[in-house]
Amino acid sequence: MFIKNTWYVACMPNEIDGKPLGRQICGERIAFYRGVEGKVAAVEDFCPHRGAALSLGFVENGNLVCGYHGLVMGCDGKTVAMPMQRVGGFPCIKNYPVVEKYGFIWVWPGNPEKADESLIPHLDWAVSDEWAYGGDMFHVNCDYRLMIDNLMDLTHEAYVHADSIGQEEIDESPPDTNVDGDKVVTSRYMNEITAPPFWKAGMRANGIDESAVVDRWQISRFSPPSHVLIDVGVALTGKGGMDADPKDRARGIVVGFITPETENSHWYFWGMARNFKADDAELTERTKVRQGEIFTQDLSVLEAQQRNLDDHPERRLLMLNIDAGGVQSRRVIDRLVKAEQEENATASA
Amino acid sequence: MFIKNTWYVACMPNEIDGKPLGRQICGERIAFYRGVEGKVAAVEDFCPHRGAALSLGFVENGNLVCGYHGLVMGCDGKTVAMPMQRVGGFPCIKNYPVVEKYGFIWVWPGNPEKADESLIPHLDWAVSDEWAYGGDMFHVNCDYRLMIDNLMDLTHEAYVHADSIGQEEIDESPPDTNVDGDKVVTSRYMNEITAPPFWKAGMRANGIDESAVVDRWQISRFSPPSHVLIDVGVALTGKGGMDADPKDRARGIVVGFITPETENSHWYFWGMARNFKADDAELTERTKVRQGEIFTQDLSVLEAQQRNLDDHPERRLLMLNIDAGGVQSRRVIDRLVKAEQEENATASA
Amino acid sequence: MFIKNTWYVACMPNEIDGKPLGRQICGERIAFYRGVEGKVAAVEDFCPHRGAALSLGFVENGNLVCGYHGLVMGCDGKTVAMPMQRVGGFPCIKNYPVVEKYGFIWVWPGNPEKADESLIPHLDWAVSDEWAYGGDMFHVNCDYRLMIDNLMDLTHEAYVHADSIGQEEIDESPPDTNVDGDKVVTSRYMNEITAPPFWKAGMRANGIDESAVVDRWQISRFSPPSHVLIDVGVALTGKGGMDADPKDRARGIVVGFITPETENSHWYFWGMARNFKADDAELTERTKVRQGEIFTQDLSVLEAQQRNLDDHPERRLLMLNIDAGGVQSRRVIDRLVKAEQEENATASA
Repeated sequence: MFIKNTWYVACMPNEIDGKPLGRQICGERIAFYRGVEGKVAAVEDFCPHRGAALSLGFVENGNLVCGYHGLVMGCDGKTVAMPMQRVGGFPCIKNYPVVEKYGFIWVWPGNPEKADESLIPHLDWAVSDEWAYGGDMFHVNCDYRLMIDNLMDLTHEAYVHADSIGQEEIDESPPDTNVDGDKVVTSRYMNEITAPPFWKAGMRANGIDESAVVDRWQISRFSPPSHVLIDVGVALTGKGGMDADPKDRARGIVVGFITPETENSHWYFWGMARNFKADDAELTERTKVRQGEIFTQDLSVLEAQQRNLDDHPERRLLMLNIDAGGVQSRRVIDRLVKAEQEENATASA
Repeated sequence: MFIKNTWYVACMPNEIDGKPLGRQICGERIAFYRGVEGKVAAVEDFCPHRGAALSLGFVENGNLVCGYHGLVMGCDGKTVAMPMQRVGGFPCIKNYPVVEKYGFIWVWPGNPEKADESLIPHLDWAVSDEWAYGGDMFHVNCDYRLMIDNLMDLTHEAYVHADSIGQEEIDESPPDTNVDGDKVVTSRYMNEITAPPFWKAGMRANGIDESAVVDRWQISRFSPPSHVLIDVGVALTGKGGMDADPKDRARGIVVGFITPETENSHWYFWGMARNFKADDAELTERTKVRQGEIFTQDLSVLEAQQRNLDDHPERRLLMLNIDAGGVQSRRVIDRLVKAEQEENATASA
Repeated sequence: MFIKNTWYVACMPNEIDGKPLGRQICGERIAFYRGVEGKVAAVEDFCPHRGAALSLGFVENGNLVCGYHGLVMGCDGKTVAMPMQRVGGFPCIKNYPVVEKYGFIWVWPGNPEKADESLIPHLDWAVSDEWAYGGDMFHVNCDYRLMIDNLMDLTHEAYVHADSIGQEEIDESPPDTNVDGDKVVTSRYMNEITAPPFWKAGMRANGIDESAVVDRWQISRFSPPSHVLIDVGVALTGKGGMDADPKDRARGIVVGFITPETENSHWYFWGMARNFKADDAELTERTKVRQGEIFTQDLSVLEAQQRNLDDHPERRLLMLNIDAGGVQSRRVIDRLVKAEQEENATASA
């Protein structure tokens, strides 16, 4: 169950460097590549000639050339040429609106006519010199919504990530969830605490005494279809929390762009935007490596959860206050999927 | 098709050392762990909060703590606590009667009210100083009943294990099968023979001339649900066979506890109890390694047999005299499964 | 959908050297081995005793002995003996007509009564001193007919094998397809060209100046059930093409025997017969290695094509002039399969 008329992160620019990429998104196999003048393009990964995977081919003059018999596919899904053939009557394949922005390639798997680049969420951290970003991608064998649940309820840090970002005060600080239209925000504040290891390292990096008493915040923001951006950090106690003077805090945004592959698997684009020492590339790399280790801990938990849910589709899960972020986010998804279905039904009636 | 109201070997103690173990038994995913005062416990491997696998968590104060969000599960399947939550209304999960005895953890996957520790078979070799035991566990991709067939018809030793425990006299000595209630015994005696390599090593270890003429015996004993214990050995000819003076024989019990995982896979707990040089730990280890090599030879045979049976469910297999042990054991299983089904039908009527 | 009353290549002689081979062909698991006096034999890979895989056994006195309990299977599918058993009433298993010829083991998976050794295609190159042959086998996860398509349309060489046998003149030279009864021939001639790297090496090996202008030919010949033999080569321009004096040309036959395993997988026996320097074993080996590299390039293309076709069974593929060879070959297969089905229906009416 996917929202289709929306933007998902499809890949990172380095994944289409020099050669096309085949990736299944929302159940559709898509070939991504750089077309005319390096502009990103995406078409069905299915050659209309004999069904070969276009992503195994190559780009020539901005067009994707099938690596099997040389059919030249245009970025619009219409065959441009094929050696010794008249191609006018060849069936078209789907093309997908695709945009390169903020360091990601975004794809719109639904109705291309509705695609509107302005609907890509604005990412201030991706365009500001005061922020640095590092991240990567995981393939995860579970429903993408389990990952949304995971990121909208950071209580799990106290258990899954006990040795890095977890601390017992998380359990003692109930989160607060608010829904505003299609957006869901879950906030947790922990004041007058000692920072956990991950944030001690952040404080140290920003020149703050790591043993100082701090106020910590976690503000998970869901927006459709499945983006979760989490404002996180610590500030010296009483200095204003996330609004403290930059020298008194270590602040970041945990980035999660979650793209369904199939009903039971997804691509997880994760990373961290950092609002201090933005020009320290070595710190960016080190933070990414550490975050990669932390997020790897989630994978076995989520994949085992998926197996359990597959075994017991009849069981009702609990919906506690800590689950409110995920529960509300799923309601938004359900509502938007239903609206799309009704729209499609009307359109075809 | 499994008997459920019975004891199966679930795991070996070292498998739950320090951390829980998730294992599927008779189609049910179960978390095994050491609870209060190190006593073994087993509950469904399904957190009632969001379906996480409890076996990925940890034990604290004798309770299993979910590694995702910290739900504290009691050994009885009732939630004990969860940070900041009232847990009184949380749904219970199954708990399983579980006993540590004879160096194994035993589980009762059926109706807990019927669980009776005294039904665990008495294993004299496991509690006597005159015996030493070494063994391990394999995961096998076939119906557990194919393994019962295997162990109840040792004719296969002449082929599968020709270089260790096989010898041609096996083929020349027809086995004899007797049924006594729920127990099935298949016996084979080979008198005035030369011992095969495995037993030559045993004779040597017990100070007997390995080239001496011996009487050999194999007595496979099936008892429900799927235990096969085989009294095996050689004695100097004419000294009384398995009843010979210990110095004139090398005697052991091949242990096979066969626990269904799914309809087409099982856990095979194998080993050998040895009735000579019981204090020679090095001999125990060497015997285990050799036995592991021998039993590994069975795996490819059984898994290929399973594929063949899957391909041809319509074919009737032969039931020769040598198969009588397996055939009769399956009849016991069928009868007990049917009795359970009728009992369940009556109970719910 | 397979033709059954026909000869397929089952294996190469070295695959049954010293021990039996289990191989699934046209959906049937078959045990191949050398029986009496080394003559090849093939029976169902299913022991009538308990369903073990006979191919895991061994050959003794020309019979296949089951490696589980020693049943001795005759080459005719009738049990010959079993230790201590009367085997007269044992059910028979299928046996398969099988012939060793031309360096391959051929099997007839259909009605044995119709098997006729003279229907194995005559392979002149396999028995002539003027030819040398080198080849090997791949397992490929796609419908065997995709491989026929591949070999009947060598346009793909310009793309899949651009660095070896491909050249742009292929695209400029439309192929011509002719059907003659059950045979399909697709021809392509490229005159007055420079040879591609693979053929430059061939010219060099045959003492011809590799930079000379040549005429090149590719004549793909399909015959049922799924044999594709391709006459290929280059000759100095104007010297008569494939009929040129052997010193003025480099000629070979690309051999493709394509044997279905299941509906979606097959065994691909590939190789090249070479009509020059036939006694140069080192050249034969080098050519085989190079051809193996080239054919490996096809595998990922075909397996991705299969996934695409599985995803979209409803889509009609194009049938262009270049596809005519494959399209016509499939029509022959369809016709012969239908004829077999009608014959079977009549026989059972």
